[in-house]
Amino acid sequence: MKIGFFQFEPKFLDVEENINQIISELEKSQTFDLIVLPELANSGYLFKKKEELEQVAEEIPGGTFVSHLESICKSKNAYIVAGVAEKKGSIFFNSSVLVGPEGYVSTYRKLHLFDREKLFFEPGNKPLEVYDIGKAKVGLMICFDWIFPETVRVLALKGAEIICHSANLVLPYSQTAMLARSVENAVFTITANRIGTEKNDELILSFTGQSQITSPKMKTLAKAEKDTIEIKIVEIDPELAKNKWINERNNLFEDRRVDYYAILT
Amino acid sequence: MKIGFFQFEPKFLDVEENINQIISELEKSQTFDLIVLPELANSGYLFKKKEELEQVAEEIPGGTFVSHLESICKSKNAYIVAGVAEKKGSIFFNSSVLVGPEGYVSTYRKLHLFDREKLFFEPGNKPLEVYDIGKAKVGLMICFDWIFPETVRVLALKGAEIICHSANLVLPYSQTAMLARSVENAVFTITANRIGTEKNDELILSFTGQSQITSPKMKTLAKAEKDTIEIKIVEIDPELAKNKWINERNNLFEDRRVDYYAILT
Repeated sequence: MKIGFFQFEPKFLDVEENINQIISELEKSQTFDLIVLPELANSGYLFKKKEELEQVAEEIPGGTFVSHLESICKSKNAYIVAGVAEKKGSIFFNSSVLVGPEGYVSTYRKLHLFDREKLFFEPGNKPLEVYDIGKAKVGLMICFDWIFPETVRVLALKGAEIICHSANLVLPYSQTAMLARSVENAVFTITANRIGTEKNDELILSFTGQSQITSPKMKTLAKAEKDTIEIKIVEIDPELAKNKWINERNNLFEDRRVDYYAILT
Repeated sequence: MKIGFFQFEPKFLDVEENINQIISELEKSQTFDLIVLPELANSGYLFKKKEELEQVAEEIPGGTFVSHLESICKSKNAYIVAGVAEKKGSIFFNSSVLVGPEGYVSTYRKLHLFDREKLFFEPGNKPLEVYDIGKAKVGLMICFDWIFPETVRVLALKGAEIICHSANLVLPYSQTAMLARSVENAVFTITANRIGTEKNDELILSFTGQSQITSPKMKTLAKAEKDTIEIKIVEIDPELAKNKWINERNNLFEDRRVDYYAILT
């Protein structure tokens, strides 16, 4: 199975330009079964007011951005996970979508919002779910969800073999933590981060790139640079993530001592 | 507050020699408030039969090994966490003890046994607890507990600021994962690993050293070599681990979305 990420620089408030960048790069790419794009890939990140979000966010499915993803998936016979500014009536979610050859599949709404996102987006209100895309089962999470080990744990316990992690990272910790997520759950992870800088009158944000793919044995299978537009695709065997036995006596899930974890919930 | 680890090579089945090594090194050490010793520091690791364990395991408190730790703590006016083969009636636990200037404090029994340990030890049967040692609150865990993110999470949610991780590591993953544990819980961690090799007719185990101390900001504050006997002590401010706010809007604990974590327990 071929999985990858597309690391690029979404242009703030310019959905059409972002669609064009994605189409242009993915259409000329080598084949893949699953590719992950960054968080808020349709819109850019640093909103100053809800009116800006109103301008670019879309209802899912049916909006411009997701419709274009559907076309790409059909033409490439592949799945895409991409961050989308989602509009739902009069409120907004920082979401990601799973789209495939047959069209739109589902939406994940970021459970753990980071910093100023809380000013514009509602916190996610849907369970963490797992989707069977034929060659593997995938789960979706977004950026800051990484710091809560519960996120990947829940997805993995529900059967996710590949974690699709759309991100707009500004801190340097996630790449190391996602290696831990991989080994502690025996899953593959794909972190698709963005690059570039956004600023307003108060704030400059520099996004840190270094998108990566990690394996159940804590290997970094692919890693991008800090500041370049890159597609990376690797071949994996998702069967490796089905096996939670790490030796003949230890199983990562069966060995959990849930009687002692009550405080977690 | 001065915290550290003592990385050494426990001699298999030779409690007296192990006590002597510990006394000799700790008595001549610079001052410390808390020091962590490896897993099974009284006994060594690679048991072939329960009779060997019978020979070295001790009731806690009151046994030779823990009594000597009490003497050291009194003389150094400090706390020690050390792995101990514990005997309780006719059964055995892979335990660690917390001992201080006033004597024995408590015992943790390893919840997640690794591989052949399951042949000799009972799985831990006590809750993960946190102890106030004056300058900080500490929690205890042992070796393979690292791979279950629930272990540190439970301790941190109960108030632990410093995680005392006695280990006999043979795999290369724990040091990276403990960096993640630090940042995701905003705690300090002390991993005290052992060095050296043990073998029997079937098996050779090489322990990997590289004991380390990590900070809530994912810094490695101290790290030992793979194969040398080392004490390392660093000065920390445990207040840093009391603060779970990582910016003005995000709190690592308050931001947890427990409604979506039900599967964890």
